[in-house]
Amino acid sequence: MKNIKISVIDTSVVGSEVTEVTEVTVASTHETLLSSLSGAGIMIEATCGGQGSCGKCKIWVLSGQVVDREGNTVEPVDGEWYLACQVYPAEDLVIEQTKQAKVSSKGEISDRFLEYIDLLPPIKKVLIKPVYPTLENNYSLQEMIRRAISGDGDGEADQPEDISIDISALQELAQVALKKVDEITIVRSSSQILASEAGDSVASLYGVAFDIGSTTVAGILVDLNQGKVIAAAAETNPQAAYGADVISRIKAAKTEDGLKTLSSVVRQCLNDLVNKLCEAAGISNRDIYLVTVAGNSTMEHLLMGVSPAYLAISPYVPVFNELPWFPPSGIGLDINCGARIIVLPNIASFVGADTVAAMVGVDQDLTSKMTLLIDLGTNGEIVLGNKDKMLVCSTAAGPAFEGAQLSSGMRAANGAIDDVTITDNVYVHTIKDELPRGICGSGVIKAIAEFVKVGVITTSGRFVSDDKMALLPGSLGKRLKVQDSGQKEFVLVRAEESATGKDISITQGDIREIQLVKSSIFTGVEILMEQLGITFAEIEQVLVAGAFGNNLDLDSALAIGLVPSAGRSKIIPVGNAAGTGAVKAILSVRVLERCRTIASKAEFIELANHPGFQKKFISNLAFPEGI
Amino acid sequence: MKNIKISVIDTSVVGSEVTEVTEVTVASTHETLLSSLSGAGIMIEATCGGQGSCGKCKIWVLSGQVVDREGNTVEPVDGEWYLACQVYPAEDLVIEQTKQAKVSSKGEISDRFLEYIDLLPPIKKVLIKPVYPTLENNYSLQEMIRRAISGDGDGEADQPEDISIDISALQELAQVALKKVDEITIVRSSSQILASEAGDSVASLYGVAFDIGSTTVAGILVDLNQGKVIAAAAETNPQAAYGADVISRIKAAKTEDGLKTLSSVVRQCLNDLVNKLCEAAGISNRDIYLVTVAGNSTMEHLLMGVSPAYLAISPYVPVFNELPWFPPSGIGLDINCGARIIVLPNIASFVGADTVAAMVGVDQDLTSKMTLLIDLGTNGEIVLGNKDKMLVCSTAAGPAFEGAQLSSGMRAANGAIDDVTITDNVYVHTIKDELPRGICGSGVIKAIAEFVKVGVITTSGRFVSDDKMALLPGSLGKRLKVQDSGQKEFVLVRAEESATGKDISITQGDIREIQLVKSSIFTGVEILMEQLGITFAEIEQVLVAGAFGNNLDLDSALAIGLVPSAGRSKIIPVGNAAGTGAVKAILSVRVLERCRTIASKAEFIELANHPGFQKKFISNLAFPEGI
Repeated sequence: MKNIKISVIDTSVVGSEVTEVTEVTVASTHETLLSSLSGAGIMIEATCGGQGSCGKCKIWVLSGQVVDREGNTVEPVDGEWYLACQVYPAEDLVIEQTKQAKVSSKGEISDRFLEYIDLLPPIKKVLIKPVYPTLENNYSLQEMIRRAISGDGDGEADQPEDISIDISALQELAQVALKKVDEITIVRSSSQILASEAGDSVASLYGVAFDIGSTTVAGILVDLNQGKVIAAAAETNPQAAYGADVISRIKAAKTEDGLKTLSSVVRQCLNDLVNKLCEAAGISNRDIYLVTVAGNSTMEHLLMGVSPAYLAISPYVPVFNELPWFPPSGIGLDINCGARIIVLPNIASFVGADTVAAMVGVDQDLTSKMTLLIDLGTNGEIVLGNKDKMLVCSTAAGPAFEGAQLSSGMRAANGAIDDVTITDNVYVHTIKDELPRGICGSGVIKAIAEFVKVGVITTSGRFVSDDKMALLPGSLGKRLKVQDSGQKEFVLVRAEESATGKDISITQGDIREIQLVKSSIFTGVEILMEQLGITFAEIEQVLVAGAFGNNLDLDSALAIGLVPSAGRSKIIPVGNAAGTGAVKAILSVRVLERCRTIASKAEFIELANHPGFQKKFISNLAFPEGI
Repeated sequence: MKNIKISVIDTSVVGSEVTEVTEVTVASTHETLLSSLSGAGIMIEATCGGQGSCGKCKIWVLSGQVVDREGNTVEPVDGEWYLACQVYPAEDLVIEQTKQAKVSSKGEISDRFLEYIDLLPPIKKVLIKPVYPTLENNYSLQEMIRRAISGDGDGEADQPEDISIDISALQELAQVALKKVDEITIVRSSSQILASEAGDSVASLYGVAFDIGSTTVAGILVDLNQGKVIAAAAETNPQAAYGADVISRIKAAKTEDGLKTLSSVVRQCLNDLVNKLCEAAGISNRDIYLVTVAGNSTMEHLLMGVSPAYLAISPYVPVFNELPWFPPSGIGLDINCGARIIVLPNIASFVGADTVAAMVGVDQDLTSKMTLLIDLGTNGEIVLGNKDKMLVCSTAAGPAFEGAQLSSGMRAANGAIDDVTITDNVYVHTIKDELPRGICGSGVIKAIAEFVKVGVITTSGRFVSDDKMALLPGSLGKRLKVQDSGQKEFVLVRAEESATGKDISITQGDIREIQLVKSSIFTGVEILMEQLGITFAEIEQVLVAGAFGNNLDLDSALAIGLVPSAGRSKIIPVGNAAGTGAVKAILSVRVLERCRTIASKAEFIELANHPGFQKKFISNLAFPEGI
């Protein structure tokens, strides 16, 4: 065994001119480059956990040789890069990490879905050389700009009279032109001039794609010229203080004041994210000229200050499915006042633009593969189909997955139990290895999968009888307690070992909660399959999206029947697909058009109304046999 | 001579349900009804002073007989009404005054130009009977409105997908629809839904036409369903505190703060006028859904917060000639937030939308008569032509006419000398017969005409020599004084008879000021005639517009050569033609279209650049011989 030195050049730090070089020494050639580096403390993102599917661990080898598992030389992909999870170091290496910016986990975007976009952002900057009016030829400044633009040589047929100019752009133009500059940068959409800047600022044009979830709001800063993600940030949706799920938010928004409050807190959250992103990227708020918003119908209604009350009363319709583009003043967003906000269209009351965005995010509307997309957020949206036909439904999924509604539940924050292994004892892993404070979604799924495996619960979801419990290995049996209320609970972490000084347990009620959710999702999938007339075997890929989807232990999810067992190899976690879709939409008018098509063509299936839903739902409550 | 009893029913009091009946007894049948009534204290407006030209003194005779000057029976016009200035009482009468609202003199509109408008306001209200969505047919509320509108039976081809909905309208719709009302009133333009109101409020739809002058801002409240003027109000333009004319305003707006201030004071003024108008008419600000704005280019730039600096530097171009319609938030106007503001288009730097409005106000673009339109405001705009061709120019006219820049000048307010008669002594008339405080525009014109007539000044504008002065009748000669500066002045009112305790005089400088202005206007007319290749004789009508035009003594104006002597009978005072035009524009999309056509087709002649201007200007300084 020989020592191998790996020098890692990291040019990815956003907003920094500094190139970091880190040198590490690894002792093994039998571990992938990815695990060698993470073992040595160099974190390279790999959403798929080293499956070779997420494409996030790209590296460029500047010197030295990498090999495959068998020790054979491998050629770089596209003659350029390798996936660190698929190659092994053969000798000393100098490698460069992906130039893609580091993004926070909530905001992460699957690059592979961004690769095939035609870069056609809805707005663009053009540099004009103004021909100032003279006494002989005394047109207005507005006319001067129109004339210059119709000759901007971009190949589009611009009829000067068809182009309108924003009032704020005229205010700027009056100031810009007074300087008699030789060059003016014009920001325009196809039919509107949005802003004018003195000199050549064409290179600086940014947009932010927002994914407004019930629980988390993510903002992704995009360079619209380069078609690249620059930075991402996420915050807890401040509306959470007014209720965990959309139904409680709708209730909170029933009064005029309530609506105003919920609207203003989320608007403030978007402003906070803009500030964070601009600070990280070293740009000004004024450089942001475009925003896309993907959110479920309730989130979009609240953002717009439109009462979502109708969404919660029969026949559960939204006030709007689609909105015209509007300036940032419409939602009090502090970016360039000439910018445009594009709220992506909704499909139905509980299937919102976030699902539309997820669908374009994974190109479900383009693929001929029969695809099952499950977006696990606070709600669970399910889409089954391909470019020919797509069925969608919505289930109340997530509060349990996100730690809410569980007795010891918490968000996936530091100290949350995110992994549980049960043998003759209980071993837990917490986020950042802090003292356990509670349990998050992925921890619960894993715990319940382990419960079934070791026999703490039956497939019906009940804790086993006391006699059977006594037969469990080690001290497991002693962890089952009966609460004062008579409810049974299984203690994962005893009070003296927890950060809170209280037992961290999973109760019979918690298990029931998870069963309800997993049955909803599974039943939803079944009904969509039935509607489409296909079987599990015909599903060619299962894409699991959502922040939760990323951290989910897929084997446990399969084990408890949360994800249909269409075959382990068909399952691909796709991260924040809605965010990816919002980014794609900000980058291309063609994607925006696809969103509109999806919103009008995708068929919404209301599960509650479906004959047979109830029966299926009850039979799906049980966990699969023989985990 | 017999006594005649006249009962006058006045239904014109705005916002009042009360019908006033006034009875007066008059002793003569040799005075017109108009002068009989005004002699008895009943004021009926008659802008033209009883010439039969303004059409404002309409009355309806409910019982009794009126006759003409010769005592012959006369038939009512259109089988309906008479002009009070043209008929004489033959016996006891019961008459009804015009139902037209009383309007303040600054805002008065010549009704006769409103008579031939196709009532096609750019926005309208339609009543829909919504078909609410069901579980089976679960479209959005937005879609519900679109469907209802496409079947509103107005005969227009409405493609539901072509109609966009304002965000504020969606916010309202969410609330309105929750009440499950049977009827919803929709406010719409051709392509946009602006607002929705529960129930049937179709009858209540108002607009305000603003005429923003450098000195006076007038607002005219219009019922858009009826096509009728409801009320009018005027205020001094608060920008006057930052300079009397456009050039000084442009200077004051050079800094960012200055621009902001000038912009915000005029916006506040519009809000004040809206409040006044709504109070007078007993309606709410929320009932106002449309606004037209006519102002000169500088006023429009300042209103929009767009720097007018370019207007004052060569090549004197505006930043914009035309703006898209925009919501009231764009200028902070406190009316219905779904309303639209239409800023009428400018022609050139110093010929603004107020002139365009005046042209449509008097139908200059429709007539085949060769028409000279002189709009006397702070600037003097001159338009010569007819539907085939129109030439326009602008002169710095008004500050002198409006009392500014004169040694004893003041606005046409109470105590201002508005008429002067000189025989062997000087007789002055003041507004509201108060003690004289100063002299206003019409007073100066009349005084100078009298000066020439009695020989106080020569036609060159100089005070006559002391010997000649001594020969003047009565004590006139003693009124000529020499100031400390050496300048001569003629005292109209001695200090002891004035409200200010100071002499009210006209100085040699004042006379020079008036000469400059009247020469500018006359020279402008001459140059336009020359350009068009016509003579005075070919001018078929001379329309004198502007607040000043209304109060002007036409004979004096002719006498001093302010208005070209194309023949007394050809001259028609047309009042606030710009306001009339703004009202016509708010009432009809066809008039709006005519404004656009005028703005692009009217030919602007820059006087200062015109060869021969200087020579003509100097020779026109003299007053006409033989007044």
